[in-house]
Amino acid sequence: MKENCSFGVLGGDGRQIAMAESIAADGFSVYAFGFEDVEFHEMIRKSELEEVIRHCESIILPLPVTSDGIHLKADYSKKQIVLDDNFAELLRDKQVFGGKMGRLFQTSRQWDRINTHDYSLREEFAVRNAVPTAEGAIEIAMREYPGTLNGSRCLVAGYGRIGKVLSRMLYGIGARVTVSARKQADLAWIRSCGYSGILTEQVGTGNYDMIFNTIPYPVFDRSVLTKMQCDPLIIDLASLPGGVDLQAAEELDLHVIHALALPGKVAPKAAGEIIKETIYHILKE
Amino acid sequence: MKENCSFGVLGGDGRQIAMAESIAADGFSVYAFGFEDVEFHEMIRKSELEEVIRHCESIILPLPVTSDGIHLKADYSKKQIVLDDNFAELLRDKQVFGGKMGRLFQTSRQWDRINTHDYSLREEFAVRNAVPTAEGAIEIAMREYPGTLNGSRCLVAGYGRIGKVLSRMLYGIGARVTVSARKQADLAWIRSCGYSGILTEQVGTGNYDMIFNTIPYPVFDRSVLTKMQCDPLIIDLASLPGGVDLQAAEELDLHVIHALALPGKVAPKAAGEIIKETIYHILKE
Amino acid sequence: MKENCSFGVLGGDGRQIAMAESIAADGFSVYAFGFEDVEFHEMIRKSELEEVIRHCESIILPLPVTSDGIHLKADYSKKQIVLDDNFAELLRDKQVFGGKMGRLFQTSRQWDRINTHDYSLREEFAVRNAVPTAEGAIEIAMREYPGTLNGSRCLVAGYGRIGKVLSRMLYGIGARVTVSARKQADLAWIRSCGYSGILTEQVGTGNYDMIFNTIPYPVFDRSVLTKMQCDPLIIDLASLPGGVDLQAAEELDLHVIHALALPGKVAPKAAGEIIKETIYHILKE
Amino acid sequence: MKENCSFGVLGGDGRQIAMAESIAADGFSVYAFGFEDVEFHEMIRKSELEEVIRHCESIILPLPVTSDGIHLKADYSKKQIVLDDNFAELLRDKQVFGGKMGRLFQTSRQWDRINTHDYSLREEFAVRNAVPTAEGAIEIAMREYPGTLNGSRCLVAGYGRIGKVLSRMLYGIGARVTVSARKQADLAWIRSCGYSGILTEQVGTGNYDMIFNTIPYPVFDRSVLTKMQCDPLIIDLASLPGGVDLQAAEELDLHVIHALALPGKVAPKAAGEIIKETIYHILKE
Repeated sequence: MKENCSFGVLGGDGRQIAMAESIAADGFSVYAFGFEDVEFHEMIRKSELEEVIRHCESIILPLPVTSDGIHLKADYSKKQIVLDDNFAELLRDKQVFGGKMGRLFQTSRQWDRINTHDYSLREEFAVRNAVPTAEGAIEIAMREYPGTLNGSRCLVAGYGRIGKVLSRMLYGIGARVTVSARKQADLAWIRSCGYSGILTEQVGTGNYDMIFNTIPYPVFDRSVLTKMQCDPLIIDLASLPGGVDLQAAEELDLHVIHALALPGKVAPKAAGEIIKETIYHILKE
Repeated sequence: MKENCSFGVLGGDGRQIAMAESIAADGFSVYAFGFEDVEFHEMIRKSELEEVIRHCESIILPLPVTSDGIHLKADYSKKQIVLDDNFAELLRDKQVFGGKMGRLFQTSRQWDRINTHDYSLREEFAVRNAVPTAEGAIEIAMREYPGTLNGSRCLVAGYGRIGKVLSRMLYGIGARVTVSARKQADLAWIRSCGYSGILTEQVGTGNYDMIFNTIPYPVFDRSVLTKMQCDPLIIDLASLPGGVDLQAAEELDLHVIHALALPGKVAPKAAGEIIKETIYHILKE
Repeated sequence: MKENCSFGVLGGDGRQIAMAESIAADGFSVYAFGFEDVEFHEMIRKSELEEVIRHCESIILPLPVTSDGIHLKADYSKKQIVLDDNFAELLRDKQVFGGKMGRLFQTSRQWDRINTHDYSLREEFAVRNAVPTAEGAIEIAMREYPGTLNGSRCLVAGYGRIGKVLSRMLYGIGARVTVSARKQADLAWIRSCGYSGILTEQVGTGNYDMIFNTIPYPVFDRSVLTKMQCDPLIIDLASLPGGVDLQAAEELDLHVIHALALPGKVAPKAAGEIIKETIYHILKE
Repeated sequence: MKENCSFGVLGGDGRQIAMAESIAADGFSVYAFGFEDVEFHEMIRKSELEEVIRHCESIILPLPVTSDGIHLKADYSKKQIVLDDNFAELLRDKQVFGGKMGRLFQTSRQWDRINTHDYSLREEFAVRNAVPTAEGAIEIAMREYPGTLNGSRCLVAGYGRIGKVLSRMLYGIGARVTVSARKQADLAWIRSCGYSGILTEQVGTGNYDMIFNTIPYPVFDRSVLTKMQCDPLIIDLASLPGGVDLQAAEELDLHVIHALALPGKVAPKAAGEIIKETIYHILKE
């Protein structure tokens, strides 16, 4: 990673702003395009797209690069940047970083020949994002649940990245934590941490004050929801369509919150740091 | 504690509602006055004051009993109950529970002869309320701080009840916790828990992302605030007037949140449970 | 798993005894061979080998099945059972369980046709054994280290199963925990838990009171040991030949303890339970 | 605390040795008497008593100062120092530190006029010693209990200093922790930490794998021991005569270990540090 590296930051949301400021705070030159409405704290040069391209070897696109498949995501800009052959051509000789780049690649065949890095595919990125996701879930639980988490009975469905971080935090707050998993090896892990462990097919039994779902398939379907004896707050953290049958939940008068994209919402600064450090690690390799 | 006990619940806020419902769920008769606008979940008899008095031996006044020193606190009623000799006379032969009863006692000399119990003076009550207070503080921190608490540098000023519970929870979430105290014995406790310990006079040194003050005197005065090198989020949990010089903080552009009466706000159900159980323990003695 | 299952337990060490008793306590018939010197607490039929074979469908061999490749491991028996075609022939129609069965299979070609299950290869078995291993390491550290673990600086080299469980326990005791790993994703996990994370190549830097090695290759070679500035207690948990250059350590006057096969030594009852439950899970599949 | 302070260290056990070395490592002059058999690591002047007195203003006696009430405790010396008027006369103008000084004061009326400090009476000293005591208890439990502490059911009787530290460590290792106390406020603390809380009179009920007693009166008397349904390992940490009826326990075939004076035994270095730092704090006041 060269010391005189210049980074061009194009569009995005609060995470991209935080990332840009953090890179600038590390002493690198940062040129930013797509942030007319933003007042940066750090020394960042707001520039036109061409200027960014002229000065920077490394270009950082947002996460996701595009929401509609056509334009660059740029929440803080009124300009619309079309993702097409011209855009790709501009970035031809650059090192291009971005998150969820799949739809970008469909906008031009040129991308095959450009040096791109999708940081959102890196394991470390996913692990680190589990932290703001878990904290976001806890914040929602604290706001919505009328009791205290301390002493409450919490079920965490799924023991992947988010399940691991979330169950640890809930335990640290003093909740009584049950975690579900499919494999005996995971149950062994779960129990070694002091939590209760149950098989995924048992999520419908037991009494819980709160249920945090992290499993991205319909575990909490109508039959499971129907046989629940308690009246838990359900926070669904699984990406769309989520793991809870929302219609059945509504009919059964269950309180379900589908919480998506928490890192960017609850901790943009942390989320920006995570992107920055993942990019640094890629540059060092 | 007799099994056929009848409880009269008079006025108050969400905690009093939750408490009434929890007592009813335990199988006791509950008569409630001062809740015209409330739809209770449990079997609770909404009644006129006289009816409550006629049926109940134990009367539970709210916390605080009065906000203005003249009327009974009753957030869910349009009626105004004056606290005077007549009111005291009504409760003469009852067992009367309440929180922060001091100002009530000034409204009539009759109170000297009435069997009263201020549950808010009990140690167990204060300890248990530290839990919703700490969770309320964490919820605020999660909402206001743009990073994650996990990995952040948190200072908890003061190692009393709230300081103890809060530092444990922050540590459990994965924050880097420093706690201040005045006594070496407290520093020994603090360090045995894995936190860093500093003397109270050192709170102005060190770099923190968040500061939680629990000390009810002006520790964070102008001189301390001025020499701070970092730009922390400050959450003041100390009762009025708090421990932070707000004017100095404003001039120095520091972000201070004075969070008061958190249990009733963030966890009315938990706070109601705490009141109920404290009363039960008094009745059993 | 049939309710009237009969288990034959052949030879082994304290774990096998604990396992046999635990199976009997669950209500199953247990026939044991190779335990002349043992007085079982539970109802267990000590029998000759032929009797065991006659009564039992499931036969449980020890862990490891053999130490010398020729005889059945049987610490509590004076008889020597040769592992050969005759032995295999005896077990031909049985369901045979055992640990580290590789060398057994070399004693007779018959084993190809026998229904065998090596429980020591199951992930859940390995995970669960990390718990007694970590506790054994902590017991050694408490015995050998003249200070307290609380507040001490501990390095855990490697973040596999043992590293994960051990670092969590050390942290729970209040040690200052640093963990090394090779991958950024593991460092992200490590830091999310509140530990310090370092890359494996950095294990020679930093000051530690204790070092727990879990990496089964020579990480602590002469060059690493030589540049250590502190004088740590080193506990090597990696299987033979371990991860520490013992000769270099001796020349440098470093205190190294190579701790092997801890589960059977420090917690035979727990180790026996783990074997039993793994076998039960296999039977249920 | 003067920079050129000289400390005289007289007699004692391993803690006193560790303390002397730690003081010397801080750069102070240390004169030691009563350690003929000891080879100190740090620069310490082994001296005759008179020489110590001549050079040092601060004299540190051991903990306890005397075991028999007549002689100075000096485990590493063959000389017997009689505690009498002559001894007191020698120390007349010194600042004298020591632990459990009560019996020393009975050896001469001169002590009334000498500047003495019994560090063992300081709260911080007691708090810090709870740490090696708790670790010593855990080491014993790990050695004696054939299962793992992780997942085991542990009762900690009493929620004083040792109870607090011990329950936290057991919880951190992953045990299922129940703590007994007499007061509701303590039960509130206990539950806020995620442990189960019971009243002291309930210690005889419930099933435990291990019981740690910290209460210095006979809580585990014959009637409590008799009605126990489980067969726990009992570790009694209370000072003599302890909290367990040993004769009844023996008749009932219960395994009881009375563990006394753990800090000096399991962690002399830590115990020496604690003494040193308490003395430093006294000197700074």
